[in-house]
Amino acid sequence: MTTELSALFEQSLAMRAETVESVLRGLFDDRARNGEIARPPRLMAAIRHGVLNGGKRLRPFLVMESAALFGAAPEAAAHVAAALECVHCYSLIHDDLPAMDDDDLRRGQPTVHRAYDEATAILAGDALLTTAFDILSSSDFELADTTRLILVRGLARAAGIGGMVGGQMLDLAAAAAPPDETGVITLQAMKTGALLRYACEAGAVVAGASAADRERLSEFGAAVGLAFQLADDLLDLTSDVATLGKAAGKDAGAGKATLVGLNGPAWARRQLDGLILQAETLLEPFGADAAMLTAAARFIADRKS
Amino acid sequence: MTTELSALFEQSLAMRAETVESVLRGLFDDRARNGEIARPPRLMAAIRHGVLNGGKRLRPFLVMESAALFGAAPEAAAHVAAALECVHCYSLIHDDLPAMDDDDLRRGQPTVHRAYDEATAILAGDALLTTAFDILSSSDFELADTTRLILVRGLARAAGIGGMVGGQMLDLAAAAAPPDETGVITLQAMKTGALLRYACEAGAVVAGASAADRERLSEFGAAVGLAFQLADDLLDLTSDVATLGKAAGKDAGAGKATLVGLNGPAWARRQLDGLILQAETLLEPFGADAAMLTAAARFIADRKS
Repeated sequence: MTTELSALFEQSLAMRAETVESVLRGLFDDRARNGEIARPPRLMAAIRHGVLNGGKRLRPFLVMESAALFGAAPEAAAHVAAALECVHCYSLIHDDLPAMDDDDLRRGQPTVHRAYDEATAILAGDALLTTAFDILSSSDFELADTTRLILVRGLARAAGIGGMVGGQMLDLAAAAAPPDETGVITLQAMKTGALLRYACEAGAVVAGASAADRERLSEFGAAVGLAFQLADDLLDLTSDVATLGKAAGKDAGAGKATLVGLNGPAWARRQLDGLILQAETLLEPFGADAAMLTAAARFIADRKS
Repeated sequence: MTTELSALFEQSLAMRAETVESVLRGLFDDRARNGEIARPPRLMAAIRHGVLNGGKRLRPFLVMESAALFGAAPEAAAHVAAALECVHCYSLIHDDLPAMDDDDLRRGQPTVHRAYDEATAILAGDALLTTAFDILSSSDFELADTTRLILVRGLARAAGIGGMVGGQMLDLAAAAAPPDETGVITLQAMKTGALLRYACEAGAVVAGASAADRERLSEFGAAVGLAFQLADDLLDLTSDVATLGKAAGKDAGAGKATLVGLNGPAWARRQLDGLILQAETLLEPFGADAAMLTAAARFIADRKS
């Protein structure tokens, strides 16, 4: 990536992050919304701790950039992006729990159950997952009902039994019985891949893009998901806690099989190059309009934290 | 309630339970559905343990009876009922966790985290909540997109921050700082009331009933919710573990304020009589067609377990 393109991407990522955070801040203040009986302040504080924590907002970026590629209304795209980020943040809060990965740090801050308590963290996660579907069906932005319903179904599938939740279940089992390469690929496609894939496809859905374009963005999302996981595994192997803002070297320590562990870092770096090429090829038909999306793929593959 | 009406109600409740359980069994077998990558067998077993456990299926009954009152398609009503039951069962699984109410028994069986483990119970709950929205947006039954979206929004609101999850948060706080009567009413309206109210309203929504009829059923659901909670508090005070199939006497033991605790059982029984009368008056315009719904209100107020 040229320095100029890289700077442009970082700028765009920060701008999109600010957009989605402004939606999230509005959603999670202490004031009860229409149809709500009351909002427990401690629950809201825990939710804000888990959501407004300086994340990179990669998934929202992918939604909003994909949506922009097909000329979707920015307001609708930002809300769909916020819904997806709620699901991502809920998954981090629950994954960090003592019964799961038992992590004390997330993005350099205490995890929600450390800053509050376990019960509050469980409920904050539950609330965020529920709110995601509230957002998609809310009257806060304009979008056709049929389109909203496709988004609800897609999010439920990407986040549910056959997607993210199932992937986390496989990941927990992997520590006791390391899966083979096929098993690792399935696990990762579910645990992190499904939501990244959905992010890219959802933008096209919001915009009412053709089935072919939706499929193209979905395949782009799949390549991005694979690259994300390889980069994550490489980072876990080579980075330290100060750079990551969370525990490092956990995979090897927990005896978890990763593709990097199975095939080595040199192989992983070659794979990453291949995935970036694939991602770029998929978006070639859109020319310069897709520059930020392909820059995102490269950023994800190259990221240092 | 006459013996004859009571027998008819029990029969109808059992029949509706079988209908919704047949939908739930179909949803939670080990076979991956369209759009799912894989289904981890242990997760599916834990979900089935938490869902197919001999519950009375009161909420599904209310959905299906309300829907039938306005001539809705039974297939659609059964699926909406199943979605609601998924949310109810997820809330039981999470509420039973050691970090929350720390219960070992549920309906006479080990709770999910006792039968499996905590991480699996957390994920099974997450999966059930997600699946509820999958069901509402699925192509398994016919329903207009606009109607589905009203159901998604209503379920998210009833189950979310300003409803069930927020209510559980207030309930946890209540042990440390018992709320006053207004506080208890708010807590209960959120924790148990919101979902029961939604159950009654959702049936009318599925059927495309008028706004006035939806509101009438929603008010009926609110009365049912209040009666449910009073009966629950009375049971906790007077019953034992063998009858309840779960721990008894927990409220007083945990120092939790209930309306029964604040005002006494005699007051509670008078309140219950008033609520049943209110529920019956609300459904009077529907005549004999609403007999099973009013019987349900009476059953809920009188229940012994």
